[in-house]
Amino acid sequence: MADRQDKRGGNEHHLQQVVALLHRHELVENLVQREGGARQPLVEHLVHRQHLNELQQLLDRLHPADIAYVLEALPLEQRLVVWDLVKADRDGEILLEVADAVRETLIAHMDEDELVAATGQLDADEIADLAPDLPEEVIQDVFKSLSGEEREQLRSAMSYAEETVGAQMDFEMIEIREDVTLEVVLRYLRRLDQLPDHTDQLFVVDREERLRGLLPVNRLLVSDPEIMVADVMTREFTSFSPEQDAQEAAGAFERYDLVSAPVVDGEGFLVGRMTVNAVVDYIRESKDSETLAAGGLAEDEDLFASVWKSVRNRWAWLAVNLVTAFIASRVIGVFENSIAQLVALAALMPIVAGIGGNSGNQTTTMIVRALALGQITRDNARTLFIKEISVSALNGLLWGSIVGLFAFLIYHSWQLGLVMTGAMALNLLLAAVMGVVIPLAMQRFGRDPAIGSSVMITAITDSGGFFIFLGLATVFLV
Amino acid sequence: MADRQDKRGGNEHHLQQVVALLHRHELVENLVQREGGARQPLVEHLVHRQHLNELQQLLDRLHPADIAYVLEALPLEQRLVVWDLVKADRDGEILLEVADAVRETLIAHMDEDELVAATGQLDADEIADLAPDLPEEVIQDVFKSLSGEEREQLRSAMSYAEETVGAQMDFEMIEIREDVTLEVVLRYLRRLDQLPDHTDQLFVVDREERLRGLLPVNRLLVSDPEIMVADVMTREFTSFSPEQDAQEAAGAFERYDLVSAPVVDGEGFLVGRMTVNAVVDYIRESKDSETLAAGGLAEDEDLFASVWKSVRNRWAWLAVNLVTAFIASRVIGVFENSIAQLVALAALMPIVAGIGGNSGNQTTTMIVRALALGQITRDNARTLFIKEISVSALNGLLWGSIVGLFAFLIYHSWQLGLVMTGAMALNLLLAAVMGVVIPLAMQRFGRDPAIGSSVMITAITDSGGFFIFLGLATVFLV
Repeated sequence: MADRQDKRGGNEHHLQQVVALLHRHELVENLVQREGGARQPLVEHLVHRQHLNELQQLLDRLHPADIAYVLEALPLEQRLVVWDLVKADRDGEILLEVADAVRETLIAHMDEDELVAATGQLDADEIADLAPDLPEEVIQDVFKSLSGEEREQLRSAMSYAEETVGAQMDFEMIEIREDVTLEVVLRYLRRLDQLPDHTDQLFVVDREERLRGLLPVNRLLVSDPEIMVADVMTREFTSFSPEQDAQEAAGAFERYDLVSAPVVDGEGFLVGRMTVNAVVDYIRESKDSETLAAGGLAEDEDLFASVWKSVRNRWAWLAVNLVTAFIASRVIGVFENSIAQLVALAALMPIVAGIGGNSGNQTTTMIVRALALGQITRDNARTLFIKEISVSALNGLLWGSIVGLFAFLIYHSWQLGLVMTGAMALNLLLAAVMGVVIPLAMQRFGRDPAIGSSVMITAITDSGGFFIFLGLATVFLV
Repeated sequence: MADRQDKRGGNEHHLQQVVALLHRHELVENLVQREGGARQPLVEHLVHRQHLNELQQLLDRLHPADIAYVLEALPLEQRLVVWDLVKADRDGEILLEVADAVRETLIAHMDEDELVAATGQLDADEIADLAPDLPEEVIQDVFKSLSGEEREQLRSAMSYAEETVGAQMDFEMIEIREDVTLEVVLRYLRRLDQLPDHTDQLFVVDREERLRGLLPVNRLLVSDPEIMVADVMTREFTSFSPEQDAQEAAGAFERYDLVSAPVVDGEGFLVGRMTVNAVVDYIRESKDSETLAAGGLAEDEDLFASVWKSVRNRWAWLAVNLVTAFIASRVIGVFENSIAQLVALAALMPIVAGIGGNSGNQTTTMIVRALALGQITRDNARTLFIKEISVSALNGLLWGSIVGLFAFLIYHSWQLGLVMTGAMALNLLLAAVMGVVIPLAMQRFGRDPAIGSSVMITAITDSGGFFIFLGLATVFLV
């Protein structure tokens, strides 16, 4: 971790500085173009260069993560100007930090040699993270330049699916033996230039690389140097398998306040290390993709993506909703005769559908959250189901009465009011049942209940609401 | 961090064990009750006790976070049985770990002495976290039992607003002077029993407690013990002020991969320390409350809250939606004459409103996300605005044509199809404009755009969609 300036957290300031310099640069450039470079071209050229120099100096002082942030916030043209000014030996780190959609635009702007050079500076686990976005030839070239051990690591890191511990782990472990004194360990460490980031514990392994225990650095510091490693090391600890779900590992880091943890294969061999910074990134990213999915975006979209690319990113969701809207429309179509006779139905029906959708989403949110936390067992599912039905029944009577009263006041028909109340109550019950059943069913069939439950609930409460309300009205009013 | 068993992350296993023991316990209890305790009362009593003993032993082995998880997943009655079995000296830690809504149920079950005892075991910053849920008298009692320094810390921690760094920081810093050698520091550390969790760096302060620099533990380990602290310490580092937004600090931890960071007041005095575990908890919690808000729940709801409590938790949102649904209903009411003449309008209007809402939510999700990342500047807002309008115009023509075709095929009226296409395009444009404007306006007026933007967008595209479609139909068709 390099020294850096006191930043007090905010980085919008850097963005403003970069933008200001880009502006001055562009102003001069426009001037040069407008005047055809005829008047005082030399002076303007110098001013122009001066701004770029200033910008380059600013960029050199920034942390890779801050440069990534600036790149993400700039429109494509300015983004590439800044990217060209970044020192080549930092390209790799910055590509790692930048959002997927923005990374694509940067990689598209680099030639093969630049990409090989940028990737070559990274650790094996980092190369594995970039690999899906790189051309095949670049990966081949980089692979050839690695040492035997690094090749093995890269192969290993790339062999695990994206959402597993194996894809998130790194290989920067300090390994020691248990049959030496702490003094020996301290001397060994002092021979190193620096320790890997997030080294809060050393990994005690035998000659076959089987994990025997962990030596927390803090225990190393407070213990008598004459003691043997075996006498102070922790033999019981949290470890993960590389095939394990990264979500589970993130949960364990959160619960047990871990900084690092060993990744061990089925035979007890140490294969890697999981660190809290990978966990923080993972949590942020999964939060982000949930937000995007909930908002109806297929994936992370570059803020300045082309219109065409954005349109495509939003298609899938709109298409799904169009289908559910068509179905709802046909449900209404069935009752067109009733509506023609009592046109008030048309004005009232969206209320029944809308409130049903909201209530159903409340139930689903509770259930999805409890599923994600692993709190739903066969044992308590029934209790929960009864609770949600009761809440909806109560809400249905309460809000149903209000909308019934509303219908009566406007249309002066108590029959219409009663039908409205009944339809609301029934649709809220439907919403509660489906709000519990849909996420549980999705979980059962191995799908992520956080994605898609909401669309399905809304589709059912829309069509169901129209059907219940118009159906009741047809039977009792028309 | 105490030794604990290899857990490989999952904790659902513990829950199953607890539930199994509770069941056996309840079975016996039911038996005793049914038979009036007449037959073999002694044997049954012993079996009964044995299950509780087994359960207690299991609980003693679990990490406080795992007990918290089990408590959250149990219905109230069983939850209190387990809570009574937990050793009193662990109550404080567990109360800290448990979700707010569940914490309330546990505290309600404890008397004042138990609460004082539980709270008294905690650090000042932890007491401050619990304080809002504790009765005033308990806080008074605990306060009296603290040392002068701890009182000062508690007062300090409680003085900061919930979403600030000050409310998240702790006080477990190891402070050293710069004019000693590393050897002296190592000897000083060896005199301690253990270092605070997450001690990845020591804080170098002067006699007035002003922060002079940081000594990373990893640097301490690799450096020559004869060197002075002043010669190896880091003088440039990320620090936070206690009044700063915790969100900003979390962003800095994520960007710069920090494990701990100093909290420094305006005059440069060291007042506390922020650690990555507090950041992970903060990120999880803010993710959680966003999910709840997006799903229409006012706050964190105990999975087994009473029906009445749940109904109240869901009122506010349903009431807001009821108002917007009423408005939409009245918009339709204005056009009842047109609908009476052309009843197809009633069946088609929800499509226009629904797709508009979805498209608007996509835009809002993009903007809210970019605002949260601080990526929107006065400079690029216009570019973004134009992009979103263009995406919507394109989507409007595309999907508008599809629904227009749909309307034509079903109702055999090309005029109706054209009105449908036009209404879709216009409503999608309205959605794009409001999707950008609403979050920006909320941000401008100091409100969180993540909460409420979606409801407002949907309200506008519903009423707007009905108005545009029925209005166009009235002008051109009726």
